[in-house]
Amino acid sequence: MKKILLALIVLPFLSKAQSADEATIKQLSDEILRNGKAYDLLHQLTKDIGGRLAGSPQFAKAVQWGKVTMEQNGADKVYLQECMVPHWVRGGKDKAVITEIDKKKATQTLDVLALGNSLGKGTVLAEVLAIDDFAELERRKEEVKGKIVYYNHGFDPTNIKPFISYGQTGPYRGAGPSRAAKYGAVGVMIRSLTESVANDPHTGAMRYNDSFPKIPAIAVGPRDADAVWELSKKSGFKMSMTTNGHFLPDTIGHNVIAELKGTEFPDQYITVGGHLDSWDVNEGAMDDGTGVVHTIEIMRAMKAIGYKPKHTIRFVLFANEENGLRGGTKYAEEAKAKGEKHVFALESDAGGFTPRGFSIQGNTAQMTKLRSWLPLLSPYGAFEFTTDGGGADVSPLNRTFGIPVGELNPDPQRYFDLHHARSDVFENVHKRELLLGAVNMAALIYLVDKYGL
Amino acid sequence: MKKILLALIVLPFLSKAQSADEATIKQLSDEILRNGKAYDLLHQLTKDIGGRLAGSPQFAKAVQWGKVTMEQNGADKVYLQECMVPHWVRGGKDKAVITEIDKKKATQTLDVLALGNSLGKGTVLAEVLAIDDFAELERRKEEVKGKIVYYNHGFDPTNIKPFISYGQTGPYRGAGPSRAAKYGAVGVMIRSLTESVANDPHTGAMRYNDSFPKIPAIAVGPRDADAVWELSKKSGFKMSMTTNGHFLPDTIGHNVIAELKGTEFPDQYITVGGHLDSWDVNEGAMDDGTGVVHTIEIMRAMKAIGYKPKHTIRFVLFANEENGLRGGTKYAEEAKAKGEKHVFALESDAGGFTPRGFSIQGNTAQMTKLRSWLPLLSPYGAFEFTTDGGGADVSPLNRTFGIPVGELNPDPQRYFDLHHARSDVFENVHKRELLLGAVNMAALIYLVDKYGL
Repeated sequence: MKKILLALIVLPFLSKAQSADEATIKQLSDEILRNGKAYDLLHQLTKDIGGRLAGSPQFAKAVQWGKVTMEQNGADKVYLQECMVPHWVRGGKDKAVITEIDKKKATQTLDVLALGNSLGKGTVLAEVLAIDDFAELERRKEEVKGKIVYYNHGFDPTNIKPFISYGQTGPYRGAGPSRAAKYGAVGVMIRSLTESVANDPHTGAMRYNDSFPKIPAIAVGPRDADAVWELSKKSGFKMSMTTNGHFLPDTIGHNVIAELKGTEFPDQYITVGGHLDSWDVNEGAMDDGTGVVHTIEIMRAMKAIGYKPKHTIRFVLFANEENGLRGGTKYAEEAKAKGEKHVFALESDAGGFTPRGFSIQGNTAQMTKLRSWLPLLSPYGAFEFTTDGGGADVSPLNRTFGIPVGELNPDPQRYFDLHHARSDVFENVHKRELLLGAVNMAALIYLVDKYGL
Repeated sequence: MKKILLALIVLPFLSKAQSADEATIKQLSDEILRNGKAYDLLHQLTKDIGGRLAGSPQFAKAVQWGKVTMEQNGADKVYLQECMVPHWVRGGKDKAVITEIDKKKATQTLDVLALGNSLGKGTVLAEVLAIDDFAELERRKEEVKGKIVYYNHGFDPTNIKPFISYGQTGPYRGAGPSRAAKYGAVGVMIRSLTESVANDPHTGAMRYNDSFPKIPAIAVGPRDADAVWELSKKSGFKMSMTTNGHFLPDTIGHNVIAELKGTEFPDQYITVGGHLDSWDVNEGAMDDGTGVVHTIEIMRAMKAIGYKPKHTIRFVLFANEENGLRGGTKYAEEAKAKGEKHVFALESDAGGFTPRGFSIQGNTAQMTKLRSWLPLLSPYGAFEFTTDGGGADVSPLNRTFGIPVGELNPDPQRYFDLHHARSDVFENVHKRELLLGAVNMAALIYLVDKYGL
């Protein structure tokens, strides 16, 4: 009975608050879906600037574009936060040709891309050892010396979430080259980290273990990977691989930071962001142009509806997520150095597809609070808070301050078709799906701003 | 305390049953994601046969393809169910040209498609009355006589679910021509029912009111619609529209029906289906090739894992959903005539995108039971049962027997970019998204077969 009485007292208050929340979220949603600029801004970023790896002239151009665009879209102030970034360049066209199949003169050209951060040596010609995984590498380590190791390890199609598959295969890209170099390999090729039906190769960052020779490393398109694997079962073959990746000296990069000043807690920060850099071979539309324009769109919409946040909301375009995370790291370092108080940080770096929810690094009480908001969010698409981790750029805030951080979870099925491939271009982003991502993020930021976390 | 004791007694049983269900659903999922044929079958249907409007030679070819394909993919038996279908033909290329803008000689060709079932009259040239909606038609009815009425009513971008927008604008396509003819219009053009950023026009069925003249009717691509609307604010103009749609005599069509025989209740039926017909201007990939191959894939996977259904499961490729619903109607009529007992029917006719849930016509008890299965389904993508209605082809079963019927709810945001437009082709279907639709449907059918509904 007590419970019932409490409910009678509390409910009218709750429903009044809830209905105000519903109204504000609807206002944000209508503003974004009617007048959203995210799609047009993405067109500018991808078509006028294009691929923008840290250290490149395009990245510098993107920083200026980001600053001006945030100024034009409602920021109370915009500033640049300097950080040193690595400057890797591809150095030319990557090539791989299979030669001497069955001791014949036949050749087959593969569609490949050098892995980011890999060091090229011009052309390496060697026999190929095609293996499935690291276990096979260990079993056959005596055969590795002088060869190019090909890792065929692909996505497990039975994983419903492709990000699980990416986690499982990621080590072949990150650590595969050095693990093969340890046994004397002269080059490494990996199956691209994708389940796409297309043959585009997918680049992405690798990292050398300084204890072993720094051998060249490439990713091959999935259909060519199938062919290589088939061939390896039938005959021995050699491959020549040509790459010219190298590092120029570290250079100055910038996080672009805009703020909407808090009315009640101006010294407490909520961060929303995406990363401004991308790989060099595409337009970085889904990775992470969509995160960049989500960020700007949320700010624009809050300003447009006249929303005055309680906390200061920072809208951050991070530098160098792809091959160094220097921007995200710098942002947390400086926040700590200045003794800032941070409340929550949310990133969009999983694409501009229809939102399904958010993935959060947070404690049980925070997850409970977030999940209590699902009735307000689910009409817009977000139906779950998972604990699969936060975004890469906001994770340093979690490690530094112990605050909850999160990432938008859009529908993930098409993401790895485009991720780090030439096909990651504007044309593969859908306007309404993109805008709905901004709607759901804006709603969550509004709730965190109003109720804390 | 009683509750706790009950829980202790019931839980082990529940969790044993649940774990068996989890295992079977995982088996179905793994089979479909590893060995699924749906994508290759869709390629056959779209590329070897193509558009297949009821009555067309392509539709007859699709019936034969469906029969053979179901026989090859595990059916206990396959048979054709005859039904008369309408036979509308486009009769040539649809055209619309704006002329005499501002009394000048300037012309502008629009990208248009005649609406399905509309009757062409060759070329009609008349002044255009551009209006927003039916309310404006009523206000300005005196101005209609002798003119071509253009309805500019588009999707409301603030609707999160595009099917809501489709419901709101559908009457302009279905009833718009006759409502204008009532006041003396000589032709009608509608804004295509889409929010696509592309300019493809979208056809689809209209229906004349026999009380008024049967005037020609076309849909215009959305970018051209924007231009027409802008122009109408600035000046008067004439338009010539050329269409040649007409009906040939009704002809024989077929539902293609395959069965997996029930082991416990062979005389009780669960139906799974999609519609085999499509519009003539595209490949009918999403509408409804994906529903067709979902249907076949579920049967194939059940057979492949050795699942023996309790009830007889019917896998039905329906005839003539698009411009008559004769197939779905016939199926229910014959079921009633034969005194069949039907348990549940599920359709896939909303695309092959990532599943988000199911939409059901059912009573409260049925909805409660369905929702109790969400923990088993949500790992595969389906997180909700909504009550937005079942599929068109299975609705006659609901009306006839009062049984629950439903439809797969895939992510809807891209559907109306393709729906009834030239762009509804194989290349716009994503393999994994397609397969996941079959996974979620197969899981639901398994649960209904095992536990009833």
